[in-house]
Amino acid sequence: MAKFLTNREENYAQWYNDLVIKANLAENSAVRGCMVIKPYGYAIWENIQAQLDKMFKATGHVNAYFPLFIPKSFFSKEAAHVEGFAKECAVVTHYRLKNDENGKGIVVDPTAKLEEELIIRPTSETIIWNSYKNWIQSYRDLPILINQWANVVRWEMRTRLFLRTSEFLWQEGHTAHATREEAVEETERMINVYSDFAEKYMALPVIKGYKSENERFAGAIDTYTIEALMQDGKALQAGTSHFLGQNFAKAFEVQFADKTGKLDYVWATSWGLSTRMVGALIMAHSDNRGLILPPRLAPLQVIIIPIYKTDEQLENISQKVKSIKTDLEREGISVNYDDKENNKPGWKFADYELKGVPVRIAVGPRDLENSTLEIARRDTLEKETIPMNNVTAYVKNLLEDIQANIYSRALKFRADNTFYANSWSEFLEIIDNQGGFIMAHWDGTSETEDKIKEETKATIRCIPFDSKDEDGFCIYSGRPSKRRVLFARSY
Amino acid sequence: MAKFLTNREENYAQWYNDLVIKANLAENSAVRGCMVIKPYGYAIWENIQAQLDKMFKATGHVNAYFPLFIPKSFFSKEAAHVEGFAKECAVVTHYRLKNDENGKGIVVDPTAKLEEELIIRPTSETIIWNSYKNWIQSYRDLPILINQWANVVRWEMRTRLFLRTSEFLWQEGHTAHATREEAVEETERMINVYSDFAEKYMALPVIKGYKSENERFAGAIDTYTIEALMQDGKALQAGTSHFLGQNFAKAFEVQFADKTGKLDYVWATSWGLSTRMVGALIMAHSDNRGLILPPRLAPLQVIIIPIYKTDEQLENISQKVKSIKTDLEREGISVNYDDKENNKPGWKFADYELKGVPVRIAVGPRDLENSTLEIARRDTLEKETIPMNNVTAYVKNLLEDIQANIYSRALKFRADNTFYANSWSEFLEIIDNQGGFIMAHWDGTSETEDKIKEETKATIRCIPFDSKDEDGFCIYSGRPSKRRVLFARSY
Repeated sequence: MAKFLTNREENYAQWYNDLVIKANLAENSAVRGCMVIKPYGYAIWENIQAQLDKMFKATGHVNAYFPLFIPKSFFSKEAAHVEGFAKECAVVTHYRLKNDENGKGIVVDPTAKLEEELIIRPTSETIIWNSYKNWIQSYRDLPILINQWANVVRWEMRTRLFLRTSEFLWQEGHTAHATREEAVEETERMINVYSDFAEKYMALPVIKGYKSENERFAGAIDTYTIEALMQDGKALQAGTSHFLGQNFAKAFEVQFADKTGKLDYVWATSWGLSTRMVGALIMAHSDNRGLILPPRLAPLQVIIIPIYKTDEQLENISQKVKSIKTDLEREGISVNYDDKENNKPGWKFADYELKGVPVRIAVGPRDLENSTLEIARRDTLEKETIPMNNVTAYVKNLLEDIQANIYSRALKFRADNTFYANSWSEFLEIIDNQGGFIMAHWDGTSETEDKIKEETKATIRCIPFDSKDEDGFCIYSGRPSKRRVLFARSY
Repeated sequence: MAKFLTNREENYAQWYNDLVIKANLAENSAVRGCMVIKPYGYAIWENIQAQLDKMFKATGHVNAYFPLFIPKSFFSKEAAHVEGFAKECAVVTHYRLKNDENGKGIVVDPTAKLEEELIIRPTSETIIWNSYKNWIQSYRDLPILINQWANVVRWEMRTRLFLRTSEFLWQEGHTAHATREEAVEETERMINVYSDFAEKYMALPVIKGYKSENERFAGAIDTYTIEALMQDGKALQAGTSHFLGQNFAKAFEVQFADKTGKLDYVWATSWGLSTRMVGALIMAHSDNRGLILPPRLAPLQVIIIPIYKTDEQLENISQKVKSIKTDLEREGISVNYDDKENNKPGWKFADYELKGVPVRIAVGPRDLENSTLEIARRDTLEKETIPMNNVTAYVKNLLEDIQANIYSRALKFRADNTFYANSWSEFLEIIDNQGGFIMAHWDGTSETEDKIKEETKATIRCIPFDSKDEDGFCIYSGRPSKRRVLFARSY
């Protein structure tokens, strides 16, 4: 199967698409720009959800659900927000179909036109703050720490499975606070939750930082982001957390009385992470044989395959495997035993490599004689023969080792592909020949950022939190700069 | 707080609505017919989801996700389906907004009209079978056992929180099989999963049966249902499982080659359960003080409230409670300690009764002296003083006892409100004065069913699986009948 993948080094985009399709992660649907997330791809998303949900709850958040539809007028209430989001939207104008009078199937009933059009939510700040208005009167009602798991729609012209689709799944947190400090603290807390999640579970090193004004969320005072580097040298924005100030509270007239009875507008944050992360997971680690999944998010962690010629051999192997499987499962490890007769071991090996199962165990008649097993790890493709009675401890360690190894491999890749450009010619040379992350001085203006984007397609991914003070000159305008910012071409 | 609830016996509908609002379960949104599910209501839904998801996976199903949008033409492909579903729908006709040229805010861009309108899914058979078409070639590709957790939209004119809303959350299973027998078996398996769930987790006794032709899912050969009785004597359809025959396979041209290479259409089922179940949960068990939640689905199972006058007393109580809480949590019991100073114990007692927390523990200075605790159960409101060192075992048993008790209470209520009508006058007398379930003979025709509905608003809820063979005469037409069916007015 794997041989049908386009070579990653030849055509990265095609390799990615092949992989998503052939590993049965997702496919395009009959509806333009909308994907079908197939069971194996959805199982990865379920693991992402489960872990994030745990982390959100551990930081005091609860889930709720708000309507899919947003009245058109809601968008106009926050000036910057309407510019950013009320554009490529799915618009509901009617609420009934009827049989065509001329027998031509079903048609929209023209008498069932909505007085005000409804927009399918591209993000839910407006509909949520319209509810919060009724929930908040006093400081006692604060903070509100709510998250929502939902589908959203942004009508995209160029779509790519997981990375950019018209409908996608995500979570969006929307919090309300009595003070600016508390809201800023929450914005930071959540970008840290995202980066912890990315690094510890996705095995994806990320750079945390501020977005420049150009790249900020429409309606935010400040946007924090985590940026990851893909294997083709392009950046991927993996999660954002927004400090919204009092913008939405003012737009929706949400005031609260403090302890002294004084009225003030409520402070807000929002933060989101989407099915795009599945795309990041694929692009960050995988190779020409297929997926490489971090054990902590892999739907299946261990596959056991019997190698046999006779039915008797299979029976003996199966009996032994049964107890190995039970032992592994007792440790919370997910294991399948693939004794299906349709396919040969070699075919199975390739198939599970394509699917990125972290650990493969093969058991043959000789293993039974010697009380051994052959264990192969997906990340390095190394094989080892180990004593059977040691399998549980060995696999447990191996899974942790694989998790750590793919993280450090990605970290090394990032280090090898992070460059410091000190002049415009250096910048051009790097962006055209190597790609990757480029740390460079910038004069802080949107004008310069626009021009750099126009000429190179590179944008400022973020101003890293840990970017050191360093006097320098903007690579483009030559004007003074106080610190370097992170440039890259991006998804 | 509870005193603000309308009396259940005076106005059941208003009592229900008050309860949903005051217990902070849900509220109406700015969008007609769409509700906001608030955190406490959503936490109940999360528990329902978690349990059902486990049961679906244990019966071999996996989750996936299909598009929100369905091309209009898809509905026309299955003749019965289009009649049932392509009516009150949300229709997307445009994909862009723009700034009004006369400065009047944002308007729909008339140039961004879709060639074919998209319908927000009211149910997903059509979009899913359009995908299955590409997934199924041979018997080796079968069965497909997929479930989807999603939002759906059916434009409802009269809505009620949880029970009937334009947008609601649900799960929909869609399976594909090589034989009729297998598909029928699956249809039965899933109605059994639903009834197990209803009885063991919701504490809701249900009657399993077949729907009559009138009440069948549009496009199904057979619909199985579970029907529950609410406290006002009305029935509520709590979950349905449909045997779809080859209808959708034929509509979408889905054929498979069997072992001999012969082509045949694929057999299908679908089955769904929605946020309506939260409404059923509320209506089945609760009283004039508020919610009564079954412990297995309650977001919070135990609340501990300190009774104190001095800070020193509070400190001593809190110290003791800490270890009690840890012990309970170690047993997997969810516990909160409410030591908030804003509200008095009496207010807290009423508030947690309103919220239906199954067990309340009160601890005062005298309890510390005597090493005792006061434990109150929400279902019967009984209180008992128990030795402190026995609390974990006591609470564990008590939770099971409450679960069992509210189930048997609901079962008794149903028994007391199930009647056998043998004549039309008896039927009228029962339906007008008592409500409840009525077992009666019916001649098997849609015509008679329609007339009974017209005259009494009662419908056939189901033909119970366990309805015994019994010769009789249709209460309405007097024609012969072979068994009784279940009538009721319903939600």
